[in-house]
Amino acid sequence: MKIFSFWRSLATYRVRIALNLKGIVPDEVIEVNLMKGQQREAEFRAVNPMMAIPALADGEGPALFESLAILEYLDEIKPNPPLLPKDPKGRARVRGLAQVVACDSHPLVVPRVREYLENELKVDETGRAKWCAHWIAAALQGIEAHLASEKATGTFCHGDQITIADICLASQAAGAKFFGVDMAKFPTAARIVQTCMSNDAFARAHPLKQPGAPAQN
Amino acid sequence: MKIFSFWRSLATYRVRIALNLKGIVPDEVIEVNLMKGQQREAEFRAVNPMMAIPALADGEGPALFESLAILEYLDEIKPNPPLLPKDPKGRARVRGLAQVVACDSHPLVVPRVREYLENELKVDETGRAKWCAHWIAAALQGIEAHLASEKATGTFCHGDQITIADICLASQAAGAKFFGVDMAKFPTAARIVQTCMSNDAFARAHPLKQPGAPAQN
Repeated sequence: MKIFSFWRSLATYRVRIALNLKGIVPDEVIEVNLMKGQQREAEFRAVNPMMAIPALADGEGPALFESLAILEYLDEIKPNPPLLPKDPKGRARVRGLAQVVACDSHPLVVPRVREYLENELKVDETGRAKWCAHWIAAALQGIEAHLASEKATGTFCHGDQITIADICLASQAAGAKFFGVDMAKFPTAARIVQTCMSNDAFARAHPLKQPGAPAQN
Repeated sequence: MKIFSFWRSLATYRVRIALNLKGIVPDEVIEVNLMKGQQREAEFRAVNPMMAIPALADGEGPALFESLAILEYLDEIKPNPPLLPKDPKGRARVRGLAQVVACDSHPLVVPRVREYLENELKVDETGRAKWCAHWIAAALQGIEAHLASEKATGTFCHGDQITIADICLASQAAGAKFFGVDMAKFPTAARIVQTCMSNDAFARAHPLKQPGAPAQN
């Protein structure tokens, strides 16, 4: 198994957490440097035409793409520990929470969007930072409303088992830190993220623990 | 089963297609008028704190949210006809293609984003239209690269069975029409959409066939 990765990619962070939880060690981690635009080079476009990471090559055939699709794949090929509950409504809630991050929020702050804001719409650095913080916070507000009010919330987003919702929430919290959004406004989410980060599978997958990341202060 | 819906919502279109394919008739269709901002009213925020449609209430408990989570739920509670292939790699490919639409593209053109562009960034109507067309086309380009080059492509996105990838592609084609993107540039995608639209489950779910939609010319 080969994973295409970059330290800063929040979507790749999700896949690293799942690999750690499942005890899968990829044979190779191939860096795609988003800051140098390597995701747009022909070599990587042949792997993922959307020019985005993560991508995961597992044996024969085209690489897998999109973080949530990869998380479900890992859960299907190695079902333990499970990353989804068993009941359809629980699964829908977990997938819904994950998608608030992966659909409604994160795609708005990725490099290609920040670059369009800068180059096409001439939005300055302050405006771009405000944009990113806005969409990160909007999703956290929605997630907090679910977590704080719904009986299904437990130690983790859904009961006492780690699911893909927790994985996505951890990536959102890392994004909140990058873009200066205060997690204290979202106390249930913050509490769950703190619990997640005490788990080694989450902690060692963190962007700032990856090769190439800036030194932590 | 109650579905919260609006004629123009591309994400709700996806759920309508799945309901039709599965032969499920909701007991109630509740209009949430996005053009009047009803998704932000307290009554609907209590249903979905992200203030977005679709939402689906099925018996007890909070409503389900996020279109892809709802599609998987429908596939789990009524497995026939299946909307995903059986093998993990095939499922990952189908989910990945669906997520190119539902994660990488559609969230960039929804009302809340167009409103931020207008009100916060003072982007004029031409600029907003260009923005929407850009992200719709970028995803179609990525999807076309997959469909045109991969052996798994068949009558539909994945073999000869309708999957959630086709449902999402049909919604993307409707978005392309709204925002003036020419599907002819994406011939494999266009061919599959045309096949889908000859299926009554897709055709009668189309935004322009819903109550409240403008008359077609």
